This record gives sequence, structure tokens and C-alpha cells, in this order.
Amino acid sequence: MYPASILLTDFYQLTMAYGYWKNGIDHKESVFHMFFRTTPFEGGFSVACGLENVIEFLENFRFEQSDIEYLASLTGNDGKALFHSDFLIFLKTFKFQCDVDAIPEGTIVFPYEPLVRVQGTLIQCQILETVLLNMINFQTLIATKAARISLAAKGDPVMEFGLRRAQGIDGALTASRAAYIGGCTGTSNVLAGKMYGIPVQGTMAHSWVMSFDKENEAFDAYAKALPNNSVFIVDTYSSLEGVKNAIETGRQLRKQGYDLAGIRLDSGDLAYLSIEARKILDENDFQNTKIVVSNELDEIIIASLKQQNAQIDTWGVGTKLITAYDQPALDGVYKLAAIREPGEPWVYKVKVSEQAIKVTTPGVQQVRRYRDGKENIADVIYNSAAEMGKGCTMIDPLNMTRQREISGEMEYKNLLVPIFRNGKKVYSSPTIHQIRENVKNELNQFHPGIERFINPHQYPVGIEKSLFELKTKLILQIRESYRHE
Amino acid sequence: MYPASILLTDFYQLTMAYGYWKNGIDHKESVFHMFFRTTPFEGGFSVACGLENVIEFLENFRFEQSDIEYLASLTGNDGKALFHSDFLIFLKTFKFQCDVDAIPEGTIVFPYEPLVRVQGTLIQCQILETVLLNMINFQTLIATKAARISLAAKGDPVMEFGLRRAQGIDGALTASRAAYIGGCTGTSNVLAGKMYGIPVQGTMAHSWVMSFDKENEAFDAYAKALPNNSVFIVDTYSSLEGVKNAIETGRQLRKQGYDLAGIRLDSGDLAYLSIEARKILDENDFQNTKIVVSNELDEIIIASLKQQNAQIDTWGVGTKLITAYDQPALDGVYKLAAIREPGEPWVYKVKVSEQAIKVTTPGVQQVRRYRDGKENIADVIYNSAAEMGKGCTMIDPLNMTRQREISGEMEYKNLLVPIFRNGKKVYSSPTIHQIRENVKNELNQFHPGIERFINPHQYPVGIEKSLFELKTKLILQIRESYRHE
Repeated sequence: MYPASILLTDFYQLTMAYGYWKNGIDHKESVFHMFFRTTPFEGGFSVACGLENVIEFLENFRFEQSDIEYLASLTGNDGKALFHSDFLIFLKTFKFQCDVDAIPEGTIVFPYEPLVRVQGTLIQCQILETVLLNMINFQTLIATKAARISLAAKGDPVMEFGLRRAQGIDGALTASRAAYIGGCTGTSNVLAGKMYGIPVQGTMAHSWVMSFDKENEAFDAYAKALPNNSVFIVDTYSSLEGVKNAIETGRQLRKQGYDLAGIRLDSGDLAYLSIEARKILDENDFQNTKIVVSNELDEIIIASLKQQNAQIDTWGVGTKLITAYDQPALDGVYKLAAIREPGEPWVYKVKVSEQAIKVTTPGVQQVRRYRDGKENIADVIYNSAAEMGKGCTMIDPLNMTRQREISGEMEYKNLLVPIFRNGKKVYSSPTIHQIRENVKNELNQFHPGIERFINPHQYPVGIEKSLFELKTKLILQIRESYRHE
Repeated sequence: MYPASILLTDFYQLTMAYGYWKNGIDHKESVFHMFFRTTPFEGGFSVACGLENVIEFLENFRFEQSDIEYLASLTGNDGKALFHSDFLIFLKTFKFQCDVDAIPEGTIVFPYEPLVRVQGTLIQCQILETVLLNMINFQTLIATKAARISLAAKGDPVMEFGLRRAQGIDGALTASRAAYIGGCTGTSNVLAGKMYGIPVQGTMAHSWVMSFDKENEAFDAYAKALPNNSVFIVDTYSSLEGVKNAIETGRQLRKQGYDLAGIRLDSGDLAYLSIEARKILDENDFQNTKIVVSNELDEIIIASLKQQNAQIDTWGVGTKLITAYDQPALDGVYKLAAIREPGEPWVYKVKVSEQAIKVTTPGVQQVRRYRDGKENIADVIYNSAAEMGKGCTMIDPLNMTRQREISGEMEYKNLLVPIFRNGKKVYSSPTIHQIRENVKNELNQFHPGIERFINPHQYPVGIEKSLFELKTKLILQIRESYRHE
């Protein structure tokens, strides 16, 4: 459904690709990891999402003739062609051949854990970087936001209806998908409903009411047309008067064997109005009529309304979810961690930085999630190209004095699973509904403190000791060599 | 290039459409306006953008067979089909027939001004609402952000490279377009370059340097491959040592008749590092080598670096621009303002609210921009369906005591121009390059105070007196009728 063009990449990926090719090192085997550095929204967990779109994309990973022609037209600062025609011929024959391992969508994940590991020729690993980051960064962000909002709603239905304020068409479509995975019960986006099988919901806007002379005429006309979809927006003129008009129409609906399904409040003090609306509905024997609310809601406002005992049954969330308004980007990156001539031993790589948080980890990484009875107790990042027993010593990457022994008796599972082997998909994708269920199940397997919005519990994620030592050695080597220059 | 499906709409647009059809009022002629309420980023101006994508979308505004089948599958709360099959047959014959007027892309605009006016049958006006809002809201937001960043850079080139952190694929593509219109000089997004003719730029990432044993080997290898595109990233290990390595490679380049085009700093104290790097470059006779920087830049950081006399020639901006990080959504809405049986007089409509800022304006609106010699002095929103002389009295919509007479001697132009008539495009779209030039020219025609980032000058936008009186009368009528219930 997207413009799934291989040109969805940063230009420097192509100039580097050309450089690798020209220097005869494009075939070198390399390992890159995609990971993020901080949990969004100052939260205690994230929900991995976006992999399915990456898979679709990689299945169509090739240069079209018009792409080649476009690249041939590009010039350097001397006005001459940037790319030699032999390189463009090489690109034409380009066929995706990487191995990809990833953490399945809907898994609860934490900073530094590789969500995706790509192993293949330097040139292929490089070109796919940007689109992989785009898809995983955004959908992981939105699935996480939706999970937080759903937790705040404590089991009440949450409707996503952000299309109008989303950042572009698939800033909406893929976000509707991620929001459903994260826990929303439906979307207003009809195309997302059609494409992904997400339930679509919606009834009327203010313009419906305004297009009639009186609000009660508007409600009656709607009930006549859609008696089985009767949620009336009541705040076009005056919310509580609107509730009374909705009840009048509800009485008509009952005579025809239907009922008043709900009323929607879209402005004002939602705590006060919902409590008053509930009273009016109950007094008039409309106890089963639901109260739906909307108006710039997010997890913090929903939690606050719950605390004020607001009488709300269904939550509609738009802008704050679809754009992840309070933090509209995840800081995911994609870094080289190992390289070799095919068949030779790995040469491990780190990127140093003055900020410890920005130093990368070498290796061919895997994440092991240890479990003690019913609860996950720690994740350990280790080098799958090296020996690893059942137990291990894990070290906090930001504070090496924090170490912990994990016994070999502990249950565990590895989080990254094979997705592509030599460019062929080997993964059987779960349905969007299975992924959504998985998020709920997964959250129940952690200490509930990770769900807190303020000062959440920090789930332990460490680096396995021998990998930590490798990392330290490489950093010291680099720092040493620069001291001597 | 998008999934340009008519189903990119909120579900309630379709249930309302069905309601209008079922009640026999779908043919009623109506007028809707798209406008926003607050200038983003606490700024003093916005740049209209996104119209071209709306035009493309409306030229393909029809239901496909698979859309109809999907709608036929949807059920109400009684488990029965929501839409009658006759309605679905009606949708199949649906042909876009609205009149659309809009403010051209690249125009400087202000709150309450209708950016788009749609006149047509109630049902068509309604269905197109959501996608129109999606496209105009997002691109106007990004074009405005890019204009602010370009103003901060005071004429220096600004590169957009946000694809990896953008909200989805066209959260990147359409943002690259809007960023170029707003003033950026290029993008890293190769597909945006191909699709829109935007210059693409880029050289190397840290992974290039890391894939070699030593930084100087990496620079030499790159220079060998791409001597005419030589901007070296110098902070992989140590920024200022990196500059010295770049200079060594630069000497090689000169021997081959090229030069060291630039160095890029991507971390650390950019003010300090750029000043030191400039010294090292100048001392080594590389005065023409440009200093490119990146790292979470926005207009505020760029202005601050300028003030600190940072020696920076080119600015690379990513996340903060592509997501409009500090305000990731524009609050644009689309509201009914008039309705009638075809041929009858207009019945004007307002939506009331307890917040004055949320009360809508009736009429068939046009915006007149008055000009005094070289400077625009005020915009007046008026009802184009009523009489209007050359001069007028304008009233501040949020404070009716602020009134101003505008003389009939004053030059003016109307901002909304015809885009579609009876569903046919009648507008000749400018090129993206013309739109971009227009932004620069337009900004020069306002008081420069609107460009300030803090407490900007408030350009006067008012409602023409007789329209203001109509609005007041309608609001009082509604409030009165609810007092008596």
C-alpha cells in the first residue's frame, strides 16, 4: 500500500554504497543492530511494532528502471555524474540476500535491546537502514503510547480517531495499526479498517447536528437512518440539554425495538458533564446507554478523569495518540557492530562518544529474557557468535559496578527470531489480532511497576559479562590510539 | 504515490453520508471552511501548504468495487448490515462535483482564515473532510517549521534529513516537500528527490568510517570513490582529530584537481567545535571548506549558535523539523458555515462553544489582504455571498471592541482562488520551486516582527463588520433558544 520504493533511503546510503563498491568492499559481511536508547514518555516499557511493514518492504527490495535513471541524473560538485554507469548496472541486478532476525511485534522491549539484527553484505545492510528505522521507530512509538492509554482506561474501550491530525497518510494508517496492536479497540480510519481488519467505529460530527434546524430533529433523523448505530454527539449547543434531546430520541428508538447506544461529550469539563449526564440518563431509565468522550485525551488525562470518578464508558483519542504528541519520535538508531571478509573471524566494532549513552555495543547480538516462575526478571544482551552458558553475569551498561549473577537454573527464551535467511522470508507472521493479544499477555508477565506513568520500575537489562569486556577493550583501544596522535 | 483511497476518511463521515441520503437531504448545497485556530510554535505566521496533494486526491475521488464490498460487510449493534444496498449503489456512481476555492500554497496565512472552502452537496463535502484536514494540517505545520528554521539560518543552506524519524513513509515524503517549500535547500530522502524534484544531498555516516580500520583510510577510500562529493564526518572518534584527517585527505584531493568540500560535526558543543575546526581548516589553507553540522537542531538552537558566532556554513535538521517536534500537530478544523436547498437563499450556520476561540464563523468566506504601499497591513474575512465595498470596518473576532476602518483607497487582493468548479480542476498549479520562491517573497511583504520567535508581532486579522454582526446574531439566537428550554 505504500510507495514501497527502495529509494526511501537517505542519499548518503547510496553514496556510501557506491564507495563500498568502488573500493571493492561492498561484499564484506557485516552485522547491524537497530535499537533505541530511551523508553518514550518517561515510561517503563515499550511495545515492539512495525516489523510486518519492514518485511513487506524487504520483499520488494529492488531498483526499478526509473530509479536507475534518476540516480544516473545526479551530479557532484564538479557538475559531473556522481555514479559510474557500471555501478548502476550492478544496482539493477541487486537482489535482497540478508539474514534478518528480529523481536516479534507486540513484545515488551527495553532500551539497548536490538529489535532488529541485519547480517549481510555491507552494501545491502546500509541501503535498508533508513526505511527500517522509519517503520520501527514510528510504530513502536505509537504502539507504546496506545498501550499506556489503554492501561489508563483500565479495560474500557479506547477508540483511535486521529487521521485528521496525523502526519501524512500512513502517519495515520500505520499508526492506526500500531494503536490497535497497543490496545485500542477500534479506529475511525475506514481504510485502516479495510486494510488491516481493525474494527471501525463512528457515528456523527457536529456538522450533522448543524445541518438541521434543531438538535432534536437531527437526532431523530439519524435514528431513522441508523437505528443500530445510535451514539449522539450532545455538545453542539449545550451538553446536558443535548443529553435530554438524545433521551427523547432514545424513547422513539425503543418503540422500534432499538435502544439509545450512547451519547458523546466532546468539550467542557468531562468529569462534571459525564457525572451529570449519567444521572440524567439513569433517572430516565437509560442505564445501559454508554457515555463516550473525546477532546484532547491522553493517558494522563484519562487517569485523572478516572480518579475523579468520571462516569465514562468509552474513550476517543485523536491527536495525542496519533502523533505521540508529548514525544513525537523514538530515538532508534542502526549501528554497525561487526564486519569480516566472508569466512574470516568477525572484527567487532564500536562507535565511541563523549556520552556513555551513545557508545555502541559490538557483537552479533541476541537478547535472552530470564524468568523466575511467573515473572520475567531480567534481559541480557549477549554475543551469539561467542560461547554462552545457561546462566551468566550481567552488567548494567551505564554503570559497570552494578553486576548480577543469573543462575543456570533459570528459565529463559531468546527474543530475536529468524525473519529472513539469505533474503528469503522464513517467518510466519502472526495476525494483527494475535499480536494485540500478545501485548496484553506480555504485560502481565512483568512486575506491574513498569506500567506506572510516574517513576516507573526500571526492569533490569544488562550486557553479558564477556560482551561487556569486549566492548570495554575496544573502547579503550580507540581512546588509546587517539591519545597518541 | 499514496494509497489515494476515498476510504481515507473517518467512519462517521460515511454514517452521516448514509443518514443524509436516507433522509433525502444529501443533495443540499453546503459550504465548509478549513481553518486553524492558533499559529504553531507560538509564532507570528504560517505557510499554507498541502493543497497540491489534496488536488491529486480529489481527482481520484471515487469508490472502488472493493471499497463497496468492504462497506457492505459492516454491521451495526444489532449485527445487521449498517448500509442499505441502494446506498452502496449510489456510492458507486459517486462523482466529485464540488467547487473548491483555496489559498495557494506558499502564502503566508493566519488563524481563522479559510485555507480551503468547499461548496457542494452535503454528502460530498462531508466525505472529503478528513483527508483534506490530514494533508493541509500536516504540510502547513512542516512548511511553517521549515520557514522558521530557514529564517534562523539567515540564508545558510538548510538540509532536511528526517526520514528515519518521520511518522511513516509520507510523514517523511510530504514533509520533505513541505520543508523544501518552507525554505530548506535539499533533502536526504532520495524518493522525495525523485518524486518532487528536490535536490538530494548526503555523503557518509559513521558506519562508513567504522567499516575501515582507521579514520584516515576511510576518508581516503571515500575520496577515491567520490572526489566530487567530499564532505567527511569527523566525529566518529574525536572531532578535531577528525578534521586533521580530513585535511590530509583534502591534500590528496587537491593533487587530483578536486578540493575538500566540507567536514561534518554531528555531536558535542557545536559552537566550540565549529570555531576550532574553522581555525584548523584556515591554518591549513582550507578556507573554502564548508562546516556542516547536525544533532537535534531546530530554529532556537540555530539562532543561539549564530549568536555565539559558531562558524557553521550548512545546517542539517532531522527529527525536530520532520515531526515538528515541539508541536507535532496543527489544530486545523473543517466547519459547516452555510446550507441551502439549491437555488434558495443561504441558511448560515455557527457552532457555539463556551470557549470564544471555538465559535465558528458563518458565510461563504473570502479573505481580503489589504496593502499600504510596500507592506501588507491587515486581512479581512468577509462573506463573499453578501455585498462588500472596497473599504470596510474590520473587527477582532476575540475582542469586538477592537475595530478598525480600512479605506477604500487601499490596494488589496483576495486570497482564495478557484481550484475546482463542479468537480473539474480549473487551477494551474505552480511548480514546487515557484511555491518555495513565493514563501520568501511573501515574508518580505509583512512587518518583519511576525518572524520573531519570541513574542512575535500580531498581524491584524479581522472579520468584516456585517459578517461579524451576522455571526453575533446567530450565536445569540442559539443561546436564547437554549435558555428557554
